[in-house]
Amino acid sequence: MKYPNGKKVDKTVKFKNTANRGMSLEDDINTSNRYYLDYDFAVIHKKPTPITLVHVDYAERSKTKITEAYFKEPSTTDYNGIYKGKYIDFEAKESHSKTSFPFTSIHIHQINHLKAVSRHGAIAFIIIRFTALNTDYLIKADDFISFYETTDRRSLPVSWIKDNGYEIISNYMCPCDYIKLIDKVFD
Amino acid sequence: MKYPNGKKVDKTVKFKNTANRGMSLEDDINTSNRYYLDYDFAVIHKKPTPITLVHVDYAERSKTKITEAYFKEPSTTDYNGIYKGKYIDFEAKESHSKTSFPFTSIHIHQINHLKAVSRHGAIAFIIIRFTALNTDYLIKADDFISFYETTDRRSLPVSWIKDNGYEIISNYMCPCDYIKLIDKVFD
Repeated sequence: MKYPNGKKVDKTVKFKNTANRGMSLEDDINTSNRYYLDYDFAVIHKKPTPITLVHVDYAERSKTKITEAYFKEPSTTDYNGIYKGKYIDFEAKESHSKTSFPFTSIHIHQINHLKAVSRHGAIAFIIIRFTALNTDYLIKADDFISFYETTDRRSLPVSWIKDNGYEIISNYMCPCDYIKLIDKVFD
Repeated sequence: MKYPNGKKVDKTVKFKNTANRGMSLEDDINTSNRYYLDYDFAVIHKKPTPITLVHVDYAERSKTKITEAYFKEPSTTDYNGIYKGKYIDFEAKESHSKTSFPFTSIHIHQINHLKAVSRHGAIAFIIIRFTALNTDYLIKADDFISFYETTDRRSLPVSWIKDNGYEIISNYMCPCDYIKLIDKVFD
């Protein structure tokens, strides 16, 4: 296959430099989800951003225009879907720190949601991209929550993640290939 | 338990008149999902409405204001979640007809999405409320799709739904109690 620069690339090449990656973790997960959908591996979508509508203009019949709205705090995680008959649910966050992931980056509603779906048998996890370390990790929701609920710290240390999380190895086609880890990580 | 009018009500009372119901099927499903969540029966949420942002005003630091946006066609169904470890996915529609449900009421993207999740092992279905008949039906996505793909008709007849669908019996606490049918309908 060929890429815009005309160079042939190995489909299975692994990369560690962000130059090959998309604009953001969200873009990379969306691309990966599209890849899973196209190859019928899994059906996973990002939920739309929740907003509160205040004013909607119906004047133009052809196109209803929202003229005043505000972003709302999410009550669930951003991503869910199905893989091999299993319900998948996760949240994805970027961290610019080299040493830890601050708990303030994730809403308490989202943690409670992950707890609830996990209790009901979901494959639930968090993906954290450490931009400064150029690494993506998958952390099981249960592991994250038990650390979160028992620690006095205000962040998750990278050292803990290295011991308890799973590095996501990606490729050009699938710039955040988290599905590949699921069979291994969840039994 | 007591309701705003001060009357005691039987929690298991079944009703057939819309006076007891909410404003819309969406309201009733949201109330039911809240009930399932409160009693920890299932974790099912409505997805936010997808919109395309055109202009966002960051001037006021306290509250980012969306000043121009448009509704987008949904690429998936409106509801999904987990029940007894199973992935649940469905679309809900109201019909004002007494005789049929027009296929134009459901987007082709949504039908393709139901096909995909069903193929991956989801409990996938459609809920149709016939407002004129004051009845809600659950129809398995597989049944709906096989009719849709083989018929020359442009709508799903109520007579077919009566034979192939399942009537949803609801109550005050749970004004669209579709979960109760799931164990019976899906094996």
